[in-house]
Amino acid sequence: MSAFVLHPRLAADTAFVADWDLSRVLLMDDARYPWAILVPRRADMTELFDLDAQDRAALTEEVARAARMLKAMTGAAKINIGALGNLVPQLHVHVVARCESDAAWPGPVWGHGAAVRYEPARRDAFVEELRARLAP
Amino acid sequence: MSAFVLHPRLAADTAFVADWDLSRVLLMDDARYPWAILVPRRADMTELFDLDAQDRAALTEEVARAARMLKAMTGAAKINIGALGNLVPQLHVHVVARCESDAAWPGPVWGHGAAVRYEPARRDAFVEELRARLAP
Repeated sequence: MSAFVLHPRLAADTAFVADWDLSRVLLMDDARYPWAILVPRRADMTELFDLDAQDRAALTEEVARAARMLKAMTGAAKINIGALGNLVPQLHVHVVARCESDAAWPGPVWGHGAAVRYEPARRDAFVEELRARLAP
Repeated sequence: MSAFVLHPRLAADTAFVADWDLSRVLLMDDARYPWAILVPRRADMTELFDLDAQDRAALTEEVARAARMLKAMTGAAKINIGALGNLVPQLHVHVVARCESDAAWPGPVWGHGAAVRYEPARRDAFVEELRARLAP
């Protein structure tokens, strides 16, 4: 059984927030949207149905928890949740706080223009806020 | 407690496939992609975290089941799963079979051009195939 290694594309596009029971929690480095990514720390997972049922239930609870917290932090109009993986095959779940004034509303964030990187101090402050509010 | 009523926009854009334990299973009337939508038959649900944990686990298993079956039916390169709800607030989960030759690959299907309605006989045949393969 191989070990979990974060896909390099995910590593390049995100900042580390925390390891929860199952998932690595990342902040997408795109200042346009408050955007977390949860990656189950299991090797060789691509589809939701690759996980066993217990991990799938755990992932769902962690996704719901991230969604609830992003909603509380941002007052978002809607949380968007997605597991696409057309470009990055490692199973990962996007949790994105959307508001009616954001760049892509009401369309999806995926494939909508290029990411706008955070100013590093702002990114680090957001990561710290996430760590505090999303602590296990 | 109000009763579950399918949102009229979802009703207009889909064909009924089946009622599973929790979810109404619909076929999106868009011949560009094999595309199911699962709607938990609970009133007044918008976000994943509005469901209680038991329903959330049930929804996840039903989504995984729909995903597995669409993958088996179509040989899709990837299943895309999404709960967006920016336009239709009733909680619903998209399960979309994607292939590298489809209209939106590798981008998301949401917001990508206008739906291409099925020729009715073809839609009905697909619904019948889904009913047979996705029977409870």
